Amino acid sequence: MLVVQKYGGTSVADADRIRHVAGRVVKRVRAGDQVVVVVSAMGNTTDELIDLALSITPEPDPRELDILLSTGEQMSIALVAMALRALGQDAVGLTGQQAGIYTRANYGSGRIARVEAERIKFELAAGRVPIIAGFQGVTDEQEIVTLGRGASDTTAVALAIALGADRCENCKDVEGVYTADPRLVPTARRLADITYEEMLELATQGSQVMHNRAVELASVYGIPVLVTSSMVDAPGTLIHGDPEQMEERNRVRGIAHDTDVAKITVRGVPDKPGIAADIFEPLAAAGVSVDTIVQNASERDLTDLTFTISRKDLKRAESLMTGICSDVGAAGFAADGNLGKVSIVGVGIQTAQGYAARMFRSLSDHGINIEMISTSEIRLTCIIDAERVADAVRVLHDAFELERAE
Amino acid sequence: MLVVQKYGGTSVADADRIRHVAGRVVKRVRAGDQVVVVVSAMGNTTDELIDLALSITPEPDPRELDILLSTGEQMSIALVAMALRALGQDAVGLTGQQAGIYTRANYGSGRIARVEAERIKFELAAGRVPIIAGFQGVTDEQEIVTLGRGASDTTAVALAIALGADRCENCKDVEGVYTADPRLVPTARRLADITYEEMLELATQGSQVMHNRAVELASVYGIPVLVTSSMVDAPGTLIHGDPEQMEERNRVRGIAHDTDVAKITVRGVPDKPGIAADIFEPLAAAGVSVDTIVQNASERDLTDLTFTISRKDLKRAESLMTGICSDVGAAGFAADGNLGKVSIVGVGIQTAQGYAARMFRSLSDHGINIEMISTSEIRLTCIIDAERVADAVRVLHDAFELERAE
Repeated sequence: MLVVQKYGGTSVADADRIRHVAGRVVKRVRAGDQVVVVVSAMGNTTDELIDLALSITPEPDPRELDILLSTGEQMSIALVAMALRALGQDAVGLTGQQAGIYTRANYGSGRIARVEAERIKFELAAGRVPIIAGFQGVTDEQEIVTLGRGASDTTAVALAIALGADRCENCKDVEGVYTADPRLVPTARRLADITYEEMLELATQGSQVMHNRAVELASVYGIPVLVTSSMVDAPGTLIHGDPEQMEERNRVRGIAHDTDVAKITVRGVPDKPGIAADIFEPLAAAGVSVDTIVQNASERDLTDLTFTISRKDLKRAESLMTGICSDVGAAGFAADGNLGKVSIVGVGIQTAQGYAARMFRSLSDHGINIEMISTSEIRLTCIIDAERVADAVRVLHDAFELERAE
Repeated sequence: MLVVQKYGGTSVADADRIRHVAGRVVKRVRAGDQVVVVVSAMGNTTDELIDLALSITPEPDPRELDILLSTGEQMSIALVAMALRALGQDAVGLTGQQAGIYTRANYGSGRIARVEAERIKFELAAGRVPIIAGFQGVTDEQEIVTLGRGASDTTAVALAIALGADRCENCKDVEGVYTADPRLVPTARRLADITYEEMLELATQGSQVMHNRAVELASVYGIPVLVTSSMVDAPGTLIHGDPEQMEERNRVRGIAHDTDVAKITVRGVPDKPGIAADIFEPLAAAGVSVDTIVQNASERDLTDLTFTISRKDLKRAESLMTGICSDVGAAGFAADGNLGKVSIVGVGIQTAQGYAARMFRSLSDHGINIEMISTSEIRLTCIIDAERVADAVRVLHDAFELERAE
């Protein structure tokens, strides 16, 4: 089969790991597969390059920063290709430009516009393993654009689509996607498979396994993605779009968590059309990204509105709130910077009965107070004290019996 | 005027120096000049990248090595362009590919085939300072090729030619070309100007001021090159093609030296056609680069033939010589690995009388024995003991009164 394998920065962090990756790829090729490899920059290279830029000027020009950052992946492709050739496997490193990865600017957060995959196909047909620089592409004017942090995952999925690959493999320093963070829950279990939507909820809720945009892209084109280990031979977790495969199983697939949550409650807001826009537009303009929004039932034409943001944005948001409250005629606001969230994720949990009740009861039985609740099609999230998040993950993992094999 | 300025690795070795270079460029632009900048990789970056490649495999693939090494200059262009923008001067970093520098492979020692300078001209016309990656270009197939060590000088001259620049400026950590190495001769004097040919002889004989190929290229197209300091404001040395400017002056322009010389003498070689080829072809095939060759007067149809090589090649050459001697019917060979050379350089010294005699007499007066002599149009070279090279440079600098202002 034709497979696109992506290796992240940890997997190519030094010469030993690069040789290890090369050995894995060669084994795969000798087993009869066609392999296209996407690599990230080695270890902390991207951060080091950013520091270098900041040593020149506190606000580096975004175009020039992209030229600088793209060298990280360019180094990796050369080294991985060398390592493959040293093992007797013909290989060829390709920059984003050489691989035909065309992007739309903005610099620093480009999007892949199209992949002109002729060169990659030519190299594959000649028996060479193409090693492609993730995280980068060029505009039609040959300007180098990076795709934003973690976007090598997206490069890999985009190439899998362009090449009609059988699947994309995201090779990491974890062995797959787990029912909860194994550092918090010793009985956490690797999932054999998971749907795109569940993966997205797990990822946005704090599982750092795969870049969201990559999962979305894979979902749109139906490309299966195997999250697996770059270190050991492990079956991994297959992300796919076929929920029927899992019908008979536990609807809760995993517990996600996040300890970086701040909350602002606006009290006594006049309950009239347009009021939400009046509150959130100034925040968006200031670059404050709002996560959950909850509006309480209205009394006497006044309502309370609560929203969560990242803790780092709290000071900026607070500085805007006094003005916003006076503009919209609200009574005032209160802030709490020390919150976290815990979620149960699984297709069908919103429509099935009893999941929400069991979640709330389990938390309450352990003295964990729920500050806010929000739900989606496949997720139930409680905002709680940051200090209780780890307890809550363990409590819910137990309550939904996620340690049990499916 | 339109000028191409080249800054080497030492001049952009760290953030402070990069900001200093940016300051110099901005000053020049504000004084009314159009400036195109060519930069090398920072400090020891190229060596560090080579070490990185060697940590993967002892024989890195040349194509992949070029992809790796080209990141060094790519980093520099981004950082210098950022530094210029931070000073309020619009600037744009351009890789070899983006700058339209087209090369012929071989990888690692490419040659510039042509420069398609439209992009650079466009940026200049828009008031931006183009910062170009030296040392690299692409083939018509968009393969990245480096031009060999020190070749950023060549990039700068090639761009000066393509752009019709008024001159090329090679900005270095020295203030110009000197009559001898100032570390050996405290009275060594900066030359105000020098011809291309003299510069070539000084360079090949050991003055590490400018890459030979760059001087040759400048000579062919008659581009004046100013060698000057990147650190301080200094008049520098103008390399040009007009020897008449210097007619009335001391014909000896400088003393060059080199302490890395080994010598092999082949004794009792049958003096017949083709014998030199029989000796030097196997050496060339083994990658031994031969410098000076001297053949002594023949007696009884036998001749002695002596040649010099770099010390690092001596072992390899010796291992071939026994076979070569038996193939050509020579009596045997002797090797000496501990030699150096000292040269006087200047247009006209071969045709003018007395220069050779004064050179030989001065050396002999100081007890320095001459092992071999070779000459060119503008150079007289003596091979001597490596230990006496420093003495010889001082002796000759005195003898030809090079400390005296012209």
